Amino acid sequence: MNYQAKIYVTLKPSILDPQGRTVERALSHLNHQNVGSVRIGKYIELNLSGEKAEVESQLKDIVENVLSNPIMEDARWELAEA
Amino acid sequence: MNYQAKIYVTLKPSILDPQGRTVERALSHLNHQNVGSVRIGKYIELNLSGEKAEVESQLKDIVENVLSNPIMEDARWELAEA
Repeated sequence: MNYQAKIYVTLKPSILDPQGRTVERALSHLNHQNVGSVRIGKYIELNLSGEKAEVESQLKDIVENVLSNPIMEDARWELAEA
Repeated sequence: MNYQAKIYVTLKPSILDPQGRTVERALSHLNHQNVGSVRIGKYIELNLSGEKAEVESQLKDIVENVLSNPIMEDARWELAEA
């Protein structure tokens, strides 16, 4: 079976996000002063093939050990049949 | 009223994703040969305050003109009360 995973990686709330702060300041200069708390993360799509239970544990391993840094980042994911 | 927007920016399917290809090769070397079509995009969260209709049109403007490049990227967003 083929599956598609969607993975969202965000900085933990306690970690400063200089890229987000820069976007926030740029938006403020563009007359969007009502915009705040800009946080920039990653959105990753990938396909996996195999048995569902195996694919699920494999995906957990990939997300926690390759695609995110658990010290600084939170990650969540969705798995659906492709 | 305060709103939170979640914005997903992905490369258009016709645009090559070298970062995704690199991750795919790395995963293959780590014994994840059943993983393919890795595409890496951005996930952005931000807060806006104001009237709902105004915030919606402002968000569309921000996403299309600041946060994404419509030539190369697709963007979609969700808006919810914060």
